[in-house]
Amino acid sequence: MLKQKIECEYVAMNEVDWQPLPEGFIRGGGRWKLLHVSPEVGSWTGLFAVSKGASVASHIHVGPGEYFLTRGKLEVRGGAEEGGVTATAPCYGYEASGARHDQTLILEDIEIYLTFQGPIQLIDGEGNTVGVMAWQQAPALWAEQTHQR
Amino acid sequence: MLKQKIECEYVAMNEVDWQPLPEGFIRGGGRWKLLHVSPEVGSWTGLFAVSKGASVASHIHVGPGEYFLTRGKLEVRGGAEEGGVTATAPCYGYEASGARHDQTLILEDIEIYLTFQGPIQLIDGEGNTVGVMAWQQAPALWAEQTHQR
Amino acid sequence: MLKQKIECEYVAMNEVDWQPLPEGFIRGGGRWKLLHVSPEVGSWTGLFAVSKGASVASHIHVGPGEYFLTRGKLEVRGGAEEGGVTATAPCYGYEASGARHDQTLILEDIEIYLTFQGPIQLIDGEGNTVGVMAWQQAPALWAEQTHQR
Amino acid sequence: MLKQKIECEYVAMNEVDWQPLPEGFIRGGGRWKLLHVSPEVGSWTGLFAVSKGASVASHIHVGPGEYFLTRGKLEVRGGAEEGGVTATAPCYGYEASGARHDQTLILEDIEIYLTFQGPIQLIDGEGNTVGVMAWQQAPALWAEQTHQR
Repeated sequence: MLKQKIECEYVAMNEVDWQPLPEGFIRGGGRWKLLHVSPEVGSWTGLFAVSKGASVASHIHVGPGEYFLTRGKLEVRGGAEEGGVTATAPCYGYEASGARHDQTLILEDIEIYLTFQGPIQLIDGEGNTVGVMAWQQAPALWAEQTHQR
Repeated sequence: MLKQKIECEYVAMNEVDWQPLPEGFIRGGGRWKLLHVSPEVGSWTGLFAVSKGASVASHIHVGPGEYFLTRGKLEVRGGAEEGGVTATAPCYGYEASGARHDQTLILEDIEIYLTFQGPIQLIDGEGNTVGVMAWQQAPALWAEQTHQR
Repeated sequence: MLKQKIECEYVAMNEVDWQPLPEGFIRGGGRWKLLHVSPEVGSWTGLFAVSKGASVASHIHVGPGEYFLTRGKLEVRGGAEEGGVTATAPCYGYEASGARHDQTLILEDIEIYLTFQGPIQLIDGEGNTVGVMAWQQAPALWAEQTHQR
Repeated sequence: MLKQKIECEYVAMNEVDWQPLPEGFIRGGGRWKLLHVSPEVGSWTGLFAVSKGASVASHIHVGPGEYFLTRGKLEVRGGAEEGGVTATAPCYGYEASGARHDQTLILEDIEIYLTFQGPIQLIDGEGNTVGVMAWQQAPALWAEQTHQR
């Protein structure tokens, strides 16, 4: 029952190179830096940079997620005109467990810090799961991209 | 058993005024903006600005906390010379449940975004609890400072 | 930012009737009582009674789950012979985030108390998602079965 | 960023001996079995047996806790006459983050399964902290009692 202590972590962001985000996740060009993974509870944290005109694939926040947009502008959940939010930096958002983001359009180049609890479930137009990005997939992709073993 | 859905939230940070941090929390001048509180699980999120030369009261992270330092420099857990970290923006940190921060010294004006799970427990030199900042205290202080009822 | 306090809850289990579990979830006969739902974090709790010879549909614990088996015997993850566990009451189990249960066979009538963090994802033989039971679906099913509005 | 997978766990309860609970925690005789600890998120799980006439020291649930009372009867938060609950087995309870239990009196020998998120904070009549039982203290006490190294 005596378990290993969880270590504190520190990441100097400028010493970590950006990696491309898969097209299935971002259409039109995005990059990321994985910052942290908590396997026990299934949470993970990353910094994302996405270009104007790109869009995020439709997805559901299976658990709650929080973001801090430090630069740029984007439409979340269709933007303010469709009942969502037009998020303009600097701003904060809380996406509740189960929040569905059909449309996420990048209006100006953004940089966004995201903490996720649980998976991001990518869905198609009929709500079918077409991909998952969670604490398992995120570090596996990151390790592949950065040639860690 | 049918409960109220948790709402998504959005905060345009520039439309929220900074409020002073209590001296018991920061010695030497600090300000904050409360961004979010999750009463069910006891997590909360805020943006903090602290001046060069100030220091954070000794504290324990009862649950895990994560930070994104967007500006400035500070010494966490005594700084790199004492086994801690000299955090320089832009950087990320994960403080594990139970992490004890005896010394937190602000070396250059900082702006830092913090997500906390569980309370921050303020302690004196003998480890006695002298204050608590958690999901209950944070919004109560904030409401008082911003004259919300 | 001042939110409603979360209420404490109490359930006298004998005053709650058992409801049938959907066949897609348990093959061969099972009943349940929903005890609690936490929408913010996506956790939920229930008591389950399943008959000898029944089996639980293949599933993944998206977040961690814990059980207290108060009566009976079952094979978890194929049972002890296949690297899983033959759980015999009274016993406790912790299923980590991402644990995959291809085979769960009830060897003797069981009563089991389960706390889940996050969804149970039902999968077919190829790993495709064929159903989800999470904090949203569980109380919706329960409300329908108990004619709550 | 590639971390160790969290292991599933199994505890055959009858193969674990009861250990005495400290008097500072239970007045009048109690025993426990530690079942699980999650250091990352600060949750822990145990089985407790407490004798009729004993009482639990005043405490605060810093994070949410859930219980399944399988045997006996106790008064939680002063019992039904004082706005609390007289819990009678078999029953379930959810204690919200911040719930304060000034009086917990055991009316009939109980056996109770408890899952805690975050610490139990023991307090005196003035609300001062006089002890803490959390994911750090629980396994340390358990290791000492069971002579684990």
